[in-house]
Amino acid sequence: MSVEKIPVGVLAATGSVGQRFVQLLDRHPWFKVVAITGSNRKIGRPYGEACHWVLADPMPAWAQSMPLSESTPDAIDVPLVFSALPSTAAADIEPAFAQAGVAVCSNASAHRSAPDVPILMPEVNPDHTALVPVQRQNRGWSGCIVTNSNCTCAGLTVTIKALNDAIGVRRAFVVSLQALSGAGYPGVASIDIHDNVIPYIASEEEKVEWEPRKMLGALENGSVQLADLQISVHANRVAVSDGHLVCLSLELAEQIAVDEAARILDTYEAPDISQSLPFTPEPVILVQDEPDRPQPRLDRLRGSGMTTVVGRIRPDPLFHLKMVVLSHNTIRGAAGGSIYNAELLVKQELIG
Amino acid sequence: MSVEKIPVGVLAATGSVGQRFVQLLDRHPWFKVVAITGSNRKIGRPYGEACHWVLADPMPAWAQSMPLSESTPDAIDVPLVFSALPSTAAADIEPAFAQAGVAVCSNASAHRSAPDVPILMPEVNPDHTALVPVQRQNRGWSGCIVTNSNCTCAGLTVTIKALNDAIGVRRAFVVSLQALSGAGYPGVASIDIHDNVIPYIASEEEKVEWEPRKMLGALENGSVQLADLQISVHANRVAVSDGHLVCLSLELAEQIAVDEAARILDTYEAPDISQSLPFTPEPVILVQDEPDRPQPRLDRLRGSGMTTVVGRIRPDPLFHLKMVVLSHNTIRGAAGGSIYNAELLVKQELIG
Amino acid sequence: MSVEKIPVGVLAATGSVGQRFVQLLDRHPWFKVVAITGSNRKIGRPYGEACHWVLADPMPAWAQSMPLSESTPDAIDVPLVFSALPSTAAADIEPAFAQAGVAVCSNASAHRSAPDVPILMPEVNPDHTALVPVQRQNRGWSGCIVTNSNCTCAGLTVTIKALNDAIGVRRAFVVSLQALSGAGYPGVASIDIHDNVIPYIASEEEKVEWEPRKMLGALENGSVQLADLQISVHANRVAVSDGHLVCLSLELAEQIAVDEAARILDTYEAPDISQSLPFTPEPVILVQDEPDRPQPRLDRLRGSGMTTVVGRIRPDPLFHLKMVVLSHNTIRGAAGGSIYNAELLVKQELIG
Amino acid sequence: MSVEKIPVGVLAATGSVGQRFVQLLDRHPWFKVVAITGSNRKIGRPYGEACHWVLADPMPAWAQSMPLSESTPDAIDVPLVFSALPSTAAADIEPAFAQAGVAVCSNASAHRSAPDVPILMPEVNPDHTALVPVQRQNRGWSGCIVTNSNCTCAGLTVTIKALNDAIGVRRAFVVSLQALSGAGYPGVASIDIHDNVIPYIASEEEKVEWEPRKMLGALENGSVQLADLQISVHANRVAVSDGHLVCLSLELAEQIAVDEAARILDTYEAPDISQSLPFTPEPVILVQDEPDRPQPRLDRLRGSGMTTVVGRIRPDPLFHLKMVVLSHNTIRGAAGGSIYNAELLVKQELIG
Repeated sequence: MSVEKIPVGVLAATGSVGQRFVQLLDRHPWFKVVAITGSNRKIGRPYGEACHWVLADPMPAWAQSMPLSESTPDAIDVPLVFSALPSTAAADIEPAFAQAGVAVCSNASAHRSAPDVPILMPEVNPDHTALVPVQRQNRGWSGCIVTNSNCTCAGLTVTIKALNDAIGVRRAFVVSLQALSGAGYPGVASIDIHDNVIPYIASEEEKVEWEPRKMLGALENGSVQLADLQISVHANRVAVSDGHLVCLSLELAEQIAVDEAARILDTYEAPDISQSLPFTPEPVILVQDEPDRPQPRLDRLRGSGMTTVVGRIRPDPLFHLKMVVLSHNTIRGAAGGSIYNAELLVKQELIG
Repeated sequence: MSVEKIPVGVLAATGSVGQRFVQLLDRHPWFKVVAITGSNRKIGRPYGEACHWVLADPMPAWAQSMPLSESTPDAIDVPLVFSALPSTAAADIEPAFAQAGVAVCSNASAHRSAPDVPILMPEVNPDHTALVPVQRQNRGWSGCIVTNSNCTCAGLTVTIKALNDAIGVRRAFVVSLQALSGAGYPGVASIDIHDNVIPYIASEEEKVEWEPRKMLGALENGSVQLADLQISVHANRVAVSDGHLVCLSLELAEQIAVDEAARILDTYEAPDISQSLPFTPEPVILVQDEPDRPQPRLDRLRGSGMTTVVGRIRPDPLFHLKMVVLSHNTIRGAAGGSIYNAELLVKQELIG
Repeated sequence: MSVEKIPVGVLAATGSVGQRFVQLLDRHPWFKVVAITGSNRKIGRPYGEACHWVLADPMPAWAQSMPLSESTPDAIDVPLVFSALPSTAAADIEPAFAQAGVAVCSNASAHRSAPDVPILMPEVNPDHTALVPVQRQNRGWSGCIVTNSNCTCAGLTVTIKALNDAIGVRRAFVVSLQALSGAGYPGVASIDIHDNVIPYIASEEEKVEWEPRKMLGALENGSVQLADLQISVHANRVAVSDGHLVCLSLELAEQIAVDEAARILDTYEAPDISQSLPFTPEPVILVQDEPDRPQPRLDRLRGSGMTTVVGRIRPDPLFHLKMVVLSHNTIRGAAGGSIYNAELLVKQELIG
Repeated sequence: MSVEKIPVGVLAATGSVGQRFVQLLDRHPWFKVVAITGSNRKIGRPYGEACHWVLADPMPAWAQSMPLSESTPDAIDVPLVFSALPSTAAADIEPAFAQAGVAVCSNASAHRSAPDVPILMPEVNPDHTALVPVQRQNRGWSGCIVTNSNCTCAGLTVTIKALNDAIGVRRAFVVSLQALSGAGYPGVASIDIHDNVIPYIASEEEKVEWEPRKMLGALENGSVQLADLQISVHANRVAVSDGHLVCLSLELAEQIAVDEAARILDTYEAPDISQSLPFTPEPVILVQDEPDRPQPRLDRLRGSGMTTVVGRIRPDPLFHLKMVVLSHNTIRGAAGGSIYNAELLVKQELIG
């Protein structure tokens, strides 16, 4: 890397994922935030005033006084932006940046289903960055849009990837217990979730049944062939601040021993090109032996929130294996994932 | 019923299920609590002092001053006891009562797996009371032991029963989100569950994978032929006071429409002999149409806590149907279920 | 009372206090809800659809299909309305009803500070209904506006009233721990209160420092002379569904024994005219002896949520007595209080 | 400091404060944990197995395999121990270590009231270490016992100290909202605190009414003259993981402006000898201007959990000032405070 940091912007920095971008980019070795954007009625106000900060880590000092800019490529002149835009806004704003030559690393779902836009996890499918030149050619862009997956998909997809590479995974039952921060801010009303579970999250089940298939799919002729994998999802909201837990039952190509599965997960490594980047999870997957782990409060910050934690691997009476998977929804499943994506783009010289 | 109420005892009345027995039996039209028992070091003390009452409904006045007796048939002379004993204690104490001619309606798991002891749900398998004469003959008892199921099994089994009768159920994926009161008192430490989920409950998954098969099984030659049904369970503890929620995916004998499934569940009725008893759930199953229901805080007290609430019925990409099932764990799933069992025994003249 | 019930309306019935009005008025012996109002964009829609019901008790069947009306005296023709309007809307809408001859029993703070509008608690100051004729004369109304106090003031004021009558109360330190339902719906964002306390509630401390002084004041020449009592308040929001807890230190006219204080509170009775009404609290004050009570979850529903619960009475090293006071914020402190007010108005023939 | 670290032991390392000692001493620049002790039935077992770790930060690797020793000076040969012993055990065990020449920095309350044992906060009363020679002479010890205060007293006492030095503080009303971790492990049962507040903590109010007076007192003839300050305390347990919040009303020697109070608190510095130690809080007091701060979840980790956070400074209608004070109960109020004490003892050459 050059000694000089790459100037970056954060789109929609006042929301809950936007805040996480600001917090994680503080002291990033490669990137320096020089612009942050917010809704139109807040433009020009300092971030410290305009933002209702909800993270336990204090707002970085440099962000306090940074004025909010408009979310347009004219307003902020940088080669790379991180987008925490809501999906409807992202539909138009992100292409405008890509058109203007900016690499957009996005947490929004708006473009995930486009055939030439990758849903990227560097520890899973770094080869999918091959869609960037396709995208540029298709759309006449000099920039690009690269998305990270839905927050629940992140840990789930890494886990399936490791077992799929080693054995083959055919079907997956998934029940998620998702944290409050996944709903943004203000998100869930306290009276709705207090002493309660909400067994429904709008549009979530559809995403989690589809996105892993794209991430695990093979590139063919400039688009992704969906992986031959069937997934059934039940999504629940629970009263946990951060950390999405997934109960997972897997049908494999063949039965394997619990120890063997643990070994496969424990030794899974990111592809070479995705290793040794600043946000590379260390380890990619942590396997726990205790009978009652992982747990969100105790394990969500493993590997600085980038590690996927798997435990309770055991035989399943219907399929082959049961297990519990945890990953941090606003770090590995959102802002941290997008930063890791950007690092991969830099390494592949796809930015600027 | 006779005008005079049947005198009953509550074994281990100071625990969380024991308290629920005391609360639900207050003003019961058929039963009158005349004795309550507690651990040996508390015998003779008034219940109001010896018991750390954790229910929101106040302790009934008559219970306040009732002294704790020893858990032996000599100490309490009644034809019927409700047992909230821990499983290890139940192993010996309950047979002693049955031997002495007492009908034991038990919430303990100790005897559930015995071939001649029914796991009884009057709205599911009232015919299993035919095991009572078998049990008496086998063991030379004049009393009997009749158990209710594990708390998580209750709503689940009714739901499967209705669909099994109508269509046939072959396989079930079950992920439970279980309430704190299911762990007894003191149960789960607050620091363990606060801002957290615990994806493990000791011995729970085994029970929920097996007990429904016994309850749904056919009586043959004085024992139960387990139902031909495979179940896979993931059990989780969540920060909810009462009400166990289950995410359920079912493989049926054939695909049916969501509306048809809703109709089957909504119109399910208890067998005739189990209807119109004081604790008969009204309705047995409540089907909800809202996209985000049932929820524990809002729906656990439907039908005074005896009704099973089912919602979010929708197609499952792997099996046939997904749905969410809620039932109150200390009412329908424990004390209320045992009282309903006792009512059935009275109606069948199997008590006293 | 006449055999025929008085037809009533509920203004702003879709909010959290409005829902409580609907729930508490179900099967009320004197009142029958014939109209409910909501925000303009929802008019005409059935309540069951337009309202996000957040109470654990199910919505009454009659309310499900009742269409929402506009909040104007033309739209709903009744002699009595209960108002759960937000304060800004109440400022204009409530006088329009009073002008049209309707008795308005209001939970809004908009008119509480008007000299001719009583803040009424029948068990404390039923004589303040003497402001109704004053109000009618001042304003040329044939109806009237009668308010209940801020939710935190309710239990606090009854407690002070009892001790003030018996001994005299000079100064009060008050720290409240207030429930989520007090903030309305959606109210507090879950991510703000989860694993947290918010030591601030907008405008709350001012109200609680002033309203008890008006309720405890003497009527003189058609207005209230504020009671000579100084109050200091710290208001906090905590993660509790219902029930406002108050830590209270009192400086009395003279020191009294703890037992004497307990006796005074325990034997406090509502003035004769306020007794034996449908919503009269039974008892008005419940005194608890246990060292760790009252607690919101266990004690908020005493006396159907209308009773004030006091415990932990003990000497105070600075003033004279410390104690803990609990009352249900949306029942005694809001909707239930307003219904009790209306019952008093009916008894005094001030309605219709 | 010398290049070689001082070997230290942690007594009762498996409890919740003991775990915090282990976590905070990881990589401490001066101290190296070489021994940890636990209850007799666990002796010899590795800490990683014997300890139910409840902190979100993972257990340090070196601690996992360290075997538990007996809590006697024979079993562990170090010049300094940190004690997380329960008070009853501390009564005998801590003097045995002091007798054997060991400096005991204790979190237990057992010896706090002894006239020759300091309750030490380096940023408040470092001169109270003058009791160490007195203690040695009185008791014939070559070691010593130095205690930190009750967890609730810590932030409270620093706040009062700053205002007392500048203006004079005469009376304090204190209502605490205390976190779950303050109750140790297993501590509070989840069913007791879920959806609830417990307005009682055994022996807590007495401690908080007395300990600040000792810490703020003057040394005279080898003992502490209690500060002339009256305190009234109401203690509450709330559902927060960490961080004790205090609502505080102060009677000063004279009224001062809110701005002046903020300036006094904001500029308060530790005495010279207590500055620049590894655990010196930076800053000692953080004053917040936002209307709704401090809040436990957002502010408890300021200054790595050693800073006291004060906000909502405003006039009090009865006394002079109201404010809200937050400090981390297991860091500044327990283990971190004891480590800071030990650093002061090292600097004053009172160890070893």
